[in-house]
Amino acid sequence: MIAAKGYAAAQPSAPLAPFNFERREVGPHDVKIEILYSGVCHSDLHQVRSEWGQGIFPMVPGHEIVGRIVEVGNHVKKFKVGDLGGIGCFVDSCRTCHSCQEGLEQYCEVGSASTYNGTEMDRKTLTYGGYSNVIVTDENYTLKVSPNLPLHRVAPLLCAGITTYSPLRHWKVGKGQKVAVVGLGGLGHMAVKFAVAMGAEVTVLSTSANKEKDAKELGAHNFVVTKDPEAMKAVYNTLDFILDCVSAEHDLNNFLSLLKRDGKLVLVGAPPEASPLRAFSLIPGRKTLAGSMIGGIAETQEMLDYCAEHNIVSDVEMIAMKDINEAYERMLKGDVKYRFVIDIATL
Amino acid sequence: MIAAKGYAAAQPSAPLAPFNFERREVGPHDVKIEILYSGVCHSDLHQVRSEWGQGIFPMVPGHEIVGRIVEVGNHVKKFKVGDLGGIGCFVDSCRTCHSCQEGLEQYCEVGSASTYNGTEMDRKTLTYGGYSNVIVTDENYTLKVSPNLPLHRVAPLLCAGITTYSPLRHWKVGKGQKVAVVGLGGLGHMAVKFAVAMGAEVTVLSTSANKEKDAKELGAHNFVVTKDPEAMKAVYNTLDFILDCVSAEHDLNNFLSLLKRDGKLVLVGAPPEASPLRAFSLIPGRKTLAGSMIGGIAETQEMLDYCAEHNIVSDVEMIAMKDINEAYERMLKGDVKYRFVIDIATL
Repeated sequence: MIAAKGYAAAQPSAPLAPFNFERREVGPHDVKIEILYSGVCHSDLHQVRSEWGQGIFPMVPGHEIVGRIVEVGNHVKKFKVGDLGGIGCFVDSCRTCHSCQEGLEQYCEVGSASTYNGTEMDRKTLTYGGYSNVIVTDENYTLKVSPNLPLHRVAPLLCAGITTYSPLRHWKVGKGQKVAVVGLGGLGHMAVKFAVAMGAEVTVLSTSANKEKDAKELGAHNFVVTKDPEAMKAVYNTLDFILDCVSAEHDLNNFLSLLKRDGKLVLVGAPPEASPLRAFSLIPGRKTLAGSMIGGIAETQEMLDYCAEHNIVSDVEMIAMKDINEAYERMLKGDVKYRFVIDIATL
Repeated sequence: MIAAKGYAAAQPSAPLAPFNFERREVGPHDVKIEILYSGVCHSDLHQVRSEWGQGIFPMVPGHEIVGRIVEVGNHVKKFKVGDLGGIGCFVDSCRTCHSCQEGLEQYCEVGSASTYNGTEMDRKTLTYGGYSNVIVTDENYTLKVSPNLPLHRVAPLLCAGITTYSPLRHWKVGKGQKVAVVGLGGLGHMAVKFAVAMGAEVTVLSTSANKEKDAKELGAHNFVVTKDPEAMKAVYNTLDFILDCVSAEHDLNNFLSLLKRDGKLVLVGAPPEASPLRAFSLIPGRKTLAGSMIGGIAETQEMLDYCAEHNIVSDVEMIAMKDINEAYERMLKGDVKYRFVIDIATL
């Protein structure tokens, strides 16, 4: 076994603290990655606090992982030592169900192997995430990362990036369309960058008027304060697509009223509470409310390549490993532009 | 003006009673229809009771109208005297907006002219529905009806038929797909007939076990009692499409759990109350919740032609005009198989 060190929560809501554990030996199809940077996702906090159901502890969070390949198994073809590699939200899946066969491993019908707070496909071996110095993964679930982008700013693409890229592609967002992004956080700021790059006219919908400057700097064309009824009324029935990146409770009917006929509101943020939905918010304009979850391996690679081509990375604030608990508190207050990234060298 | 007689509610929730009123003279593009049968839609009751917002009174309900053309305007090309004609939920629309241009007049961006409880496009002239002996309509908003089908059983196709046909077509339901229909009433029984005719494997989801025989007689292949958790569990993640025809409050999350990845739940019944929706019901399988409202003129004609070709009509119980108030009470209890149709000769 390979000795690994990281930061873990010992039990639900416990502060994260140093933790020693083991990774498996490098198998014939595995790569060993020296982790360089790990993004801090809002879902790390949800899971550490068991807000999405009972977590598995000790928990080493982190599913926005980038690093350098330091060892490859005998049969590895995709990587060589020295390459950069990335790991997202899952490290394996059943590989045989319809979803896996279609390259949609995130929807594996057996249940994919989460990068942390889960198990490998044997359903016994616990998984530990990216707040750690080393990881061993199957090459097929490891992404190639361009050396031409600033690596610390690539890390959040593995979750925040693909989570927003995938629905924009799936619902064919592009030129000539009016797209809104709700919530200008880790997901939202990536959504704005992608939607702008894809040629849409992009509006940011936000509760706080003071985010307008930031939204425009990210490339958004318009900004609407959702608490201003007149400003909202001006957008009624005008939008083709809304990507809703908010993970706190909020009113969906209000946003649905902004869609034109056949418009689509897609949820990627996941409030734990149910939200009241009126049938009349959907029926009169044949509107769609849908959800989308991260992306498959092939699409994640496509997204990373798209980012390399279009020079898209995340806006991040670097932190030391020891400051993770403080970072969680700041994240809860929305006090981060737009993603914390842990410099694993500080471990 | 043309003298007309019908049944109207004088004010919200008042019983319907005889009412004399006037229709416009036959204009160059108009047809005059002697109404023979008028279906009784659940939405008639909602509107007569002002449950969908304040209604316009006196209100003559009825938007499932069939009859015989007895006069045509100078420029009418589609009809000649003696033809059968049908009228659905609207009698005009702006004809210039994107939706009208695309033949989706039901989503007219100006607002179409409802067959009753509304106004003509002048936004002044009140409209009165099919619980009456005569109606004058523009030929472009009048449907051709085959003489080969039993006419009284065609009437409900003008609302219940197109409301269920349109989403099945829009979301491309057909062979190889597993489709469920929720609620075996006026809409639901038509949905079963259409989905079966289109080649889908059809399941009826119902709260009452005693509807199984009826469901099977309508052509459904499977029947699931929604109150039986084990029976529901057996259907989890298996359905491609659910058409939800229930207009009373109910739990959408439960039905969404029955959909497989990329499955779609489409609402055509409209409970007045909001329903709690969990984001996690949509996100993990990229599921869609959508709404659909009746259909455009071209698609309504396509549906009527499809019915003539496949010998599809509604299952109805005929009533006399004077029994409409009693029929409403029975409809509220779900005591009708599956649509009341008024024989206008009894007026």
